Amino acid sequence: MNRSDPAPSGARLWADLHEVARIGATPRGGCDRQALTALDGEARAWLRDRALALGCTPLLDRFGNMAFLRPGSDPARQPVAFGSHLDTQPTGGKFDGVLGVLAGLEILRALHEAGAETAAPLLLVNWTNEEGARFAPPMQGSGAAMGIFTPQQVLDTRDPAGARFGDELARIGWGGDDALPDMAAYLELHIEQGPELEREGLSIGTVTHALAQRWYEVEVTGESAHGGSRMEGRRDALMAALPLMAAVEALALEHGGRGTVGQLRIGPGSRNVAPETCWFSVDTRHGDEALLARMGGELRARAAEIAAARNVRVEVRDFWHSPGQPFDARLCGFIRDAARKRGYAAKDMPTAIGHDAVYVARRVPTAMVFVPCHGGLSHNEAESITPEWAEAGLLVLADAVLAAAE
Amino acid sequence: MNRSDPAPSGARLWADLHEVARIGATPRGGCDRQALTALDGEARAWLRDRALALGCTPLLDRFGNMAFLRPGSDPARQPVAFGSHLDTQPTGGKFDGVLGVLAGLEILRALHEAGAETAAPLLLVNWTNEEGARFAPPMQGSGAAMGIFTPQQVLDTRDPAGARFGDELARIGWGGDDALPDMAAYLELHIEQGPELEREGLSIGTVTHALAQRWYEVEVTGESAHGGSRMEGRRDALMAALPLMAAVEALALEHGGRGTVGQLRIGPGSRNVAPETCWFSVDTRHGDEALLARMGGELRARAAEIAAARNVRVEVRDFWHSPGQPFDARLCGFIRDAARKRGYAAKDMPTAIGHDAVYVARRVPTAMVFVPCHGGLSHNEAESITPEWAEAGLLVLADAVLAAAE
Repeated sequence: MNRSDPAPSGARLWADLHEVARIGATPRGGCDRQALTALDGEARAWLRDRALALGCTPLLDRFGNMAFLRPGSDPARQPVAFGSHLDTQPTGGKFDGVLGVLAGLEILRALHEAGAETAAPLLLVNWTNEEGARFAPPMQGSGAAMGIFTPQQVLDTRDPAGARFGDELARIGWGGDDALPDMAAYLELHIEQGPELEREGLSIGTVTHALAQRWYEVEVTGESAHGGSRMEGRRDALMAALPLMAAVEALALEHGGRGTVGQLRIGPGSRNVAPETCWFSVDTRHGDEALLARMGGELRARAAEIAAARNVRVEVRDFWHSPGQPFDARLCGFIRDAARKRGYAAKDMPTAIGHDAVYVARRVPTAMVFVPCHGGLSHNEAESITPEWAEAGLLVLADAVLAAAE
Repeated sequence: MNRSDPAPSGARLWADLHEVARIGATPRGGCDRQALTALDGEARAWLRDRALALGCTPLLDRFGNMAFLRPGSDPARQPVAFGSHLDTQPTGGKFDGVLGVLAGLEILRALHEAGAETAAPLLLVNWTNEEGARFAPPMQGSGAAMGIFTPQQVLDTRDPAGARFGDELARIGWGGDDALPDMAAYLELHIEQGPELEREGLSIGTVTHALAQRWYEVEVTGESAHGGSRMEGRRDALMAALPLMAAVEALALEHGGRGTVGQLRIGPGSRNVAPETCWFSVDTRHGDEALLARMGGELRARAAEIAAARNVRVEVRDFWHSPGQPFDARLCGFIRDAARKRGYAAKDMPTAIGHDAVYVARRVPTAMVFVPCHGGLSHNEAESITPEWAEAGLLVLADAVLAAAE
């Protein structure tokens, strides 16, 4: 570091967060800025304009991942990267993802104002489609960049309306042909999306590893029947599906994991017709791969029981698996040191939630900084944090980035 | 009756059924000919052309109800009416409704060929939107004609895409300004849509009354949360709704009624978001008004328990009530006599299902003729009957119509 010490500003970060929140703002105070929509493009342009004003070199890859490179004093070193994502859920909040990107921007801004130079170059990244709300699965930009998905897998993904990822990226004008540089390290600041830090009165979580996830798709096929027909002999797909959906919750509670049914469709979908089909998504998570697999096995066993008892067909298909992922011990040490030096109460914790950092960690030494959010609420328009939490995350992230870039 | 005796033909009826089934035919052998679509218009034109060729006078009211008047020898008498509906469910069959209309057409054709004249005039009716699949509630054409719904209630109904009943009727060109004449009697032939007649080896059901129906809408509102958040403290609207949907089935079984959840939506609808809202429709039916009301009361009590236990809001709203309805004893007698004379095994039975005849019965002496359908299956593309059952229904209907018109 040279010239004056950089001084990242929590107030400027807070102002930026609320400026970006206007892009796709919802009436209930949240954001609907889904991946590869025009609003996503608007937020990308906002970020590009500000990063270019700081003299950074823009990079854009074929998946729409955006990066901004700030040179270091040692040309032999790979960049220290940091960032997150600007896309949101359909009824998302103002902080999920955005906090990590805008804190990164504020770090570059503070360095620029201070005229400071790091040894390693720095790289701010905005990953495409972290949320997986419009195009599933989630974390496609980071997954493609890290070689976890093939380019075609990602570019050919279709949203529920049938629109193709690659076409939508081209339509909003954010496909490029740069390759992102190899990274020496990756650090991501994110809200916790759980209640632990707030409940325990802590400002910082040092994320040491990611829980494993298994997602499934379930399809129950029975026979439709008129709503006036006798109950005896019905093969109602929805009634058969009810105890299986309930099992998703029960298994999560029994094994100490998580279980969610987030999408659900029945057909043919008429008030006076008992459904022939019921399709639903299942998202399960656990810190222990073996217990996670056991939850899936017990779900399949329950499906087979229901199929036999109700005379329906039940298919449980694997949809996605994200293995448990350890984070980098040295980077975690930088985060702990920064929190201690700054006087923030902190603890080590896992993430129960997928993040771009989890994919990046498969190729690059990685760690995450968590800050609390009120009530643990996220993927919700009411998601909220305090300016103090945002500032704590910004300063700890900045210290860790600068330590890694020395 | 004069000149030769009319001889309605089961073979011609069977051919007509399969000709009309081509309008909106589905790949799995059923029909998708929903009310006020272009295909509905096509089926209407098919019927009009054939009825006009028999010298009938066409009538069309403002709700799109079509009728064809054949004069009688006694100008003082009101017409004896018969018919049903040509619209279908989205994945409907070839016989539900269509059988009654085309059997009526075949009766007019047989009279025409025989040069026969009845004392009372005859009136063949095709009622608009019996199914209630696209525009809810069902039986809007007969309900409006009988003054059960106001004209505006029906004309302003909107389909799920927001299209207005009155506008869609005008768009397909089937709105008129005739009034249907007062009727002396109404007879409707229909498939049973239940398994009893087939199981008992009977060809004819004399329908003596209609079961009562109560339809509800249920909305559960909790709080959305990220799929990675802890299970403790979640307020998942879908998980809260599951036991309430299961209660719809359990209450029907317990009280000897029927219960169906045919439509269901959850929001926001992302794989990794526990739902904030769950909306579903409930259709309950029973032969006993008091037990039907008790099923509704117990559903509401269960809703209140769930709301308290799960910390969610549960609203159960009345959507529709169709009271139990007795049919006309004299017309039922004509049906029994016809079955006996023709040698068809028959029994008296209620209908558990709404029909245009149930609304017409509030103003006009009415009865229905049921014929079996395979497996009791209906509102299903696999709905099927035998040519013998169709012929039995045709001949019994014809005899009952001619007896009422003497």
